Amino acid sequence: MDVSAQAIAVVGSVAFDTIETPIGRAEDVLGGSATYFSLAASFFAPVHLVAVVGEDFPDAEREYLASRGIDISGLEVRPGRTFRWTGRYHEDLNVRDTLSLELNVFADFRPTLSEEVRKAPIVYLGNIDPDLQEAVLEQFDDPSLVACDTMNHWITNSREPLVELLPRLDLLVLNDEEARLLSREQNVARAARRILELGPRSVLVKRGEYGAILFSPESVFAVPAYPLEEVFDPTGAGDVFAGGVVGYLAATGERSEMGLRRAIVYGTVLASYAVEDFGPERLRTLTRDDIERRYRQFVALTEF
Amino acid sequence: MDVSAQAIAVVGSVAFDTIETPIGRAEDVLGGSATYFSLAASFFAPVHLVAVVGEDFPDAEREYLASRGIDISGLEVRPGRTFRWTGRYHEDLNVRDTLSLELNVFADFRPTLSEEVRKAPIVYLGNIDPDLQEAVLEQFDDPSLVACDTMNHWITNSREPLVELLPRLDLLVLNDEEARLLSREQNVARAARRILELGPRSVLVKRGEYGAILFSPESVFAVPAYPLEEVFDPTGAGDVFAGGVVGYLAATGERSEMGLRRAIVYGTVLASYAVEDFGPERLRTLTRDDIERRYRQFVALTEF
Repeated sequence: MDVSAQAIAVVGSVAFDTIETPIGRAEDVLGGSATYFSLAASFFAPVHLVAVVGEDFPDAEREYLASRGIDISGLEVRPGRTFRWTGRYHEDLNVRDTLSLELNVFADFRPTLSEEVRKAPIVYLGNIDPDLQEAVLEQFDDPSLVACDTMNHWITNSREPLVELLPRLDLLVLNDEEARLLSREQNVARAARRILELGPRSVLVKRGEYGAILFSPESVFAVPAYPLEEVFDPTGAGDVFAGGVVGYLAATGERSEMGLRRAIVYGTVLASYAVEDFGPERLRTLTRDDIERRYRQFVALTEF
Repeated sequence: MDVSAQAIAVVGSVAFDTIETPIGRAEDVLGGSATYFSLAASFFAPVHLVAVVGEDFPDAEREYLASRGIDISGLEVRPGRTFRWTGRYHEDLNVRDTLSLELNVFADFRPTLSEEVRKAPIVYLGNIDPDLQEAVLEQFDDPSLVACDTMNHWITNSREPLVELLPRLDLLVLNDEEARLLSREQNVARAARRILELGPRSVLVKRGEYGAILFSPESVFAVPAYPLEEVFDPTGAGDVFAGGVVGYLAATGERSEMGLRRAIVYGTVLASYAVEDFGPERLRTLTRDDIERRYRQFVALTEF
């Protein structure tokens, strides 16, 4: 982590995931959008984690998060069980089925931010109800950068509050299917243009194994993914990607187009590591040196 | 075209296509793998076109090809009708149905190359029967660069002759689905590794709107596609891409990794223009200046 890095506050889910892929199965691994984001961002900047868990959340995981420099004072413990998700990936890892979903304590999540968290200059609104994203964003004093993720479910069922939130965002992160659904445009470039008209300063479209495209009013940046011969488990890759992007911006204070582009390459690098093992396992052993080494490999991969 | 450019010989199909897309319909437009390849490559180097057409092939199209500096002395005219294909694209332009296919004179295509064509230093074997590709390749004196395309149909039904051809190729061009089918590996990076083991010097995997990846024993190069807000018709984009790649290599004599990478970016640029109108219409008005302008835009699109 860089000593001059700005603090990031993230709000989202902390969960236990049971994951089946063609390669194997892992039960009750640490998951959730806020977890993946925090772990990735923690390589670059201090993170305030705002989320809720049940009484079943183990001390060992609290200690692990804290050991990453993540402030868990905003990780509320409520009577009941932690959010649980079970999913199965197809041979084509881009396709997955949700086998079960238990919201548990997450169903009543309605956080009140502490004095310290309100001061955070950088905010990441993980994939939760847009009404809740808005209620959380309201509580911050004066963030200089607000990034936000969403998903099909909210685009379909909470379109209005989501659209109202868009003008307040510096960076909207979503995948290509979500961009199409939100814009009602099939073509991704036109979809992103349409979304930009709704107010966010920039739109970052995730394309999984195909990379990402950043759209802003003045420019477009396209980047491939890091090609891997073995993808173990794509769970959380999108949030890890966002954690790398926002983490780099927090570490450097960069807000230029080129800074944002480099941030996206760091996000790409982090995501490429995350999918190498189940859940967040690979992030547990990852070092900042690993990240820099693959960043240089990524430069070599794309230069012409 | 560069005056010092090396000559390219291309063998493949010349056809008339009837194309339906969500945007419109075009009847009997000039098509075929050899046509698209030749038109794209003709921006960079002299091209010998080796193909067959029926007596219905209009003088105007012969004149158009010749006006592009394409040598059509190897464009045989046979009694009967020219190859015809009719296809319909879905809303998702990555998916298309073949509505009809008439091989016509193409069914008995078995070219004998002229003295001049045999001397061509660069050979492109368009998507035809691998036995025929081999029979044509045999006739060349001593080509310094051999590139080759194929498709699912040949991978499934002519696997053995195709695999026998691979060690003789400098560059195999195929899409990701074809790479999976040929290698029997789901992961594209592993698929390409497996194909490299079969003998081609490098494997260029086309991913349509997602770009391309070049695999060689020592390195990997990944490049996104040029994002377009309007894709009119993807027909022929793969052959135009290959025509740009091989054309640039012919124009510059480049055989280095960096040269091949730049060639792939030129192929990407050519393909991005080709899809802006039905069939090869956009290529009719395209200029070398247009190509250089979009190449510079592509640099700006991808730099970080």
